[in-house]
Amino acid sequence: MKTKNVVDLTDLSHEELEEVVKLANEIKNRPEDYMDACRGKILATLFYEPSTRTQMSFQTAMLRLGGKIIGFDNPQNSSVAKGENLKDTVTVVGGYSDILAIRHPLEGTAAAAAMYSPVPVVNAGDGGHLHPTQTLTDVVTLSNESGRLDHLCIGLCGDLKNGRTVHSLIKTMSTFEGNRFVLISTPELTVPRYIKDIINASGCKYTEVRSLAEAMPLLDVLYMTRIQRERFASEEEYKRQNGVFVLDREKLRTAKKTMKILHPLPRVDEIDVEVDYDDRAKYFVQTVYGMYGRMALILKLLENNTKEYPGRVMPTHPFRCINPRCISSTEKYLPGLFDEAGGDMLICKYCDGRRLI
Amino acid sequence: MKTKNVVDLTDLSHEELEEVVKLANEIKNRPEDYMDACRGKILATLFYEPSTRTQMSFQTAMLRLGGKIIGFDNPQNSSVAKGENLKDTVTVVGGYSDILAIRHPLEGTAAAAAMYSPVPVVNAGDGGHLHPTQTLTDVVTLSNESGRLDHLCIGLCGDLKNGRTVHSLIKTMSTFEGNRFVLISTPELTVPRYIKDIINASGCKYTEVRSLAEAMPLLDVLYMTRIQRERFASEEEYKRQNGVFVLDREKLRTAKKTMKILHPLPRVDEIDVEVDYDDRAKYFVQTVYGMYGRMALILKLLENNTKEYPGRVMPTHPFRCINPRCISSTEKYLPGLFDEAGGDMLICKYCDGRRLI
Amino acid sequence: MKTKNVVDLTDLSHEELEEVVKLANEIKNRPEDYMDACRGKILATLFYEPSTRTQMSFQTAMLRLGGKIIGFDNPQNSSVAKGENLKDTVTVVGGYSDILAIRHPLEGTAAAAAMYSPVPVVNAGDGGHLHPTQTLTDVVTLSNESGRLDHLCIGLCGDLKNGRTVHSLIKTMSTFEGNRFVLISTPELTVPRYIKDIINASGCKYTEVRSLAEAMPLLDVLYMTRIQRERFASEEEYKRQNGVFVLDREKLRTAKKTMKILHPLPRVDEIDVEVDYDDRAKYFVQTVYGMYGRMALILKLLENNTKEYPGRVMPTHPFRCINPRCISSTEKYLPGLFDEAGGDMLICKYCDGRRLI
Repeated sequence: MKTKNVVDLTDLSHEELEEVVKLANEIKNRPEDYMDACRGKILATLFYEPSTRTQMSFQTAMLRLGGKIIGFDNPQNSSVAKGENLKDTVTVVGGYSDILAIRHPLEGTAAAAAMYSPVPVVNAGDGGHLHPTQTLTDVVTLSNESGRLDHLCIGLCGDLKNGRTVHSLIKTMSTFEGNRFVLISTPELTVPRYIKDIINASGCKYTEVRSLAEAMPLLDVLYMTRIQRERFASEEEYKRQNGVFVLDREKLRTAKKTMKILHPLPRVDEIDVEVDYDDRAKYFVQTVYGMYGRMALILKLLENNTKEYPGRVMPTHPFRCINPRCISSTEKYLPGLFDEAGGDMLICKYCDGRRLI
Repeated sequence: MKTKNVVDLTDLSHEELEEVVKLANEIKNRPEDYMDACRGKILATLFYEPSTRTQMSFQTAMLRLGGKIIGFDNPQNSSVAKGENLKDTVTVVGGYSDILAIRHPLEGTAAAAAMYSPVPVVNAGDGGHLHPTQTLTDVVTLSNESGRLDHLCIGLCGDLKNGRTVHSLIKTMSTFEGNRFVLISTPELTVPRYIKDIINASGCKYTEVRSLAEAMPLLDVLYMTRIQRERFASEEEYKRQNGVFVLDREKLRTAKKTMKILHPLPRVDEIDVEVDYDDRAKYFVQTVYGMYGRMALILKLLENNTKEYPGRVMPTHPFRCINPRCISSTEKYLPGLFDEAGGDMLICKYCDGRRLI
Repeated sequence: MKTKNVVDLTDLSHEELEEVVKLANEIKNRPEDYMDACRGKILATLFYEPSTRTQMSFQTAMLRLGGKIIGFDNPQNSSVAKGENLKDTVTVVGGYSDILAIRHPLEGTAAAAAMYSPVPVVNAGDGGHLHPTQTLTDVVTLSNESGRLDHLCIGLCGDLKNGRTVHSLIKTMSTFEGNRFVLISTPELTVPRYIKDIINASGCKYTEVRSLAEAMPLLDVLYMTRIQRERFASEEEYKRQNGVFVLDREKLRTAKKTMKILHPLPRVDEIDVEVDYDDRAKYFVQTVYGMYGRMALILKLLENNTKEYPGRVMPTHPFRCINPRCISSTEKYLPGLFDEAGGDMLICKYCDGRRLI
């Protein structure tokens, strides 16, 4: 695979993504053929905030390929995290290992890490920004459970405004033909304008509805997500919405027998435990597909791997991003990097934040 | 081995236990024959409270069998531990791995985990309730150091009331013929009634004494345990008892030359450091036997391993346990499961707590 | 190799050190020949204080030799660290593993651990005292980058009074012929008297200077270290010194084209990020040499490895060290061990602290 780093899933070309999904399915069918595929290779998981689930998924993926793992998960205890800038840590740990998975509370960290790492960098979550291997997980699941990635009617329910997994899934599924999105949320928590623009540009369609009940009979796929309690105006509002957006057996009555229920997990209250016993519930097996997806991605990124420090990146502009949650606001040596978006608008290459010149 | 989960050591039949002990001894004698026995298998250690020693023993066991390890040990930092119920964590991590070792501060957690795990569950300690691999450690040690598991005079010293390792060892050793127990403690800290009932029912014998000195000359085995300072009425009482229940070289004078001293470790003050240099001290080599015991147990549990989610367990009664330290009081989706113990008495299947209907 | 434990790098004979460096270079050139060299062996990293970088370097070294790793890094969460004395932990974990790397905030801990461990002990840092694998890292780097270990002009800059890496590097490089040291620091932060005595005794030479600028043109090697802000009398003093001791591109102008810049890392402000792009900057590749050095050391220490508990060490004197940062002040069972240094002077064998009889 030509791509070196996966900061966003769109770093993969459509063909590369299909290759990864195909390989994931092959590994799933014959895992023993891949038991030594990464023999002698080391994955470093640099988790600047704890995410046990994601870290275990990466670790398991590497171990099941016959590779080894190092890393940290504990920023308070980590001398790396404390005294040292991101660049130095990535440079050094990239020297020890063959591939990095990085998670960080600040947006754009994986993009910044990729500028310094001699080995491939996979974004395991950078703040509320991107989390490409979750989307890969979703895609591998649909490929297996729905049998195709196109011409699906996909319902997305929950906090569609802030949910990075929702945005990323829509962006990716829009690149496949004939998909249709049913956006299920309160008016306050619907997807941002730019996501709707992406759907429109792709030639896919979307509808917005205000309850699970309205959407249910139409769906091939129901993608549930959490709504954080603090997103609601009041406790009463929260409780009222709960009845409309919480999935239970009753609401499933009108769904297709072949519908697939997905969830990025962890689930809190938005899916009743009783639904776990319904054959349409795929959110647990989804995590296993996630493991196969990560195995395929690691394997592809390690193809043609020659350890090499990247060339120096020069700033595009003589200032830096003003988003306080952007890594380039904190790590002062990072060059200011912007794409010009027409007019006076700049888009930060780390965090995708916009600013006027 | 037919048994899938080891929540309590009594989950193994007497024959299965003997098989495991035999295999532990074989591994000890020819470890190189087992270096690849678990190749391609993953042990997940889910430690909801830290117990470095126990976790390292499980990890070492799996690594020495050629297997791999994932897991967590740090509940504060663990997203798994925080946001997610036990059932979901066990379901997901069971999907990643081939066997789980679980430790949790609440009683009955391993039993609950076994209801949802697609792979074998080993209890690595559930509150003050059970810790079967410690008892397996003790049994493998006795088998090697005393040369037999029957017709032993076994002294148990310390806090016999609250010590789960003591209760478990008595329960297991009672299933072998001709063992005799000398219970060495204050009257307040002697074993509970139900343990005495188990000894009596087994046909074994026991005596209660009030000092190490009285017991010493009789013993083939001396099993020392810690008495926590806070168990005593006063600091003076604690200091007084210390002289009676702390093992030192002086007290060892009247012991048999062949007596074996065991301790589940960590030791605090109850064995003087000078005793470490006595040939009868077996508490350090005991930890090595524990590693072989865990290796044997993992190997046996992975025999005939087909990964399969267990069927749904329905409640036996329409209410749950009232023990606040029982996992079923906290995790609300767990079905109420009780054995009827005669009369109006119910025994909780998670924590073994009793309640009236 | 005859040596069992590496508490200080001087535990290796000059020949043994040269062997290790030679092996490190061989591994670097043909890493695939060593991929299974430690198959079936386990390294335990006992880190009583976090040092992610050092721990990852040891772990990577063992994994790249085909070995496995266990350990802890989190004293607050560790039951081992909390309840148990060092002797018991080392005895038990030594029973599980084949080699120990130990880090501890108290001086002399590795020496104490070596008294009880059945397997080789490598000091991964004991307080401000010793850190031999850092020095090994430096030596392997010089051997490769400067092409020799003798007849070098070595500048050392920063806090030379308190920097254990500086002391250790001088001690080791003094054993090679014709090396000359340029000590670059404030008068308050120059090397202790005993280090100057070592240089003089070795037949090597040293000069003391007060700025990087004076030293620069002379140097084959520039070894930069951090000066902690709190070492300065005032904030103004700190800022003033900064200009004199911070390395930047400007100061490099007068340096030889072939000079090598080293730093034990993590770096804070004492080297400007711009210097990273200068070909003379070797502080990042230095960490990779450190990995090869640790691989070589582990491999050598595991040669002729027979697991054996060391004999009991008896005290040389009937009292213990009075240094509150010495492990023997805290762990009361440790025997008082002193070398007589002439007159009434004793030198503690744990922490190298001096006291009068």
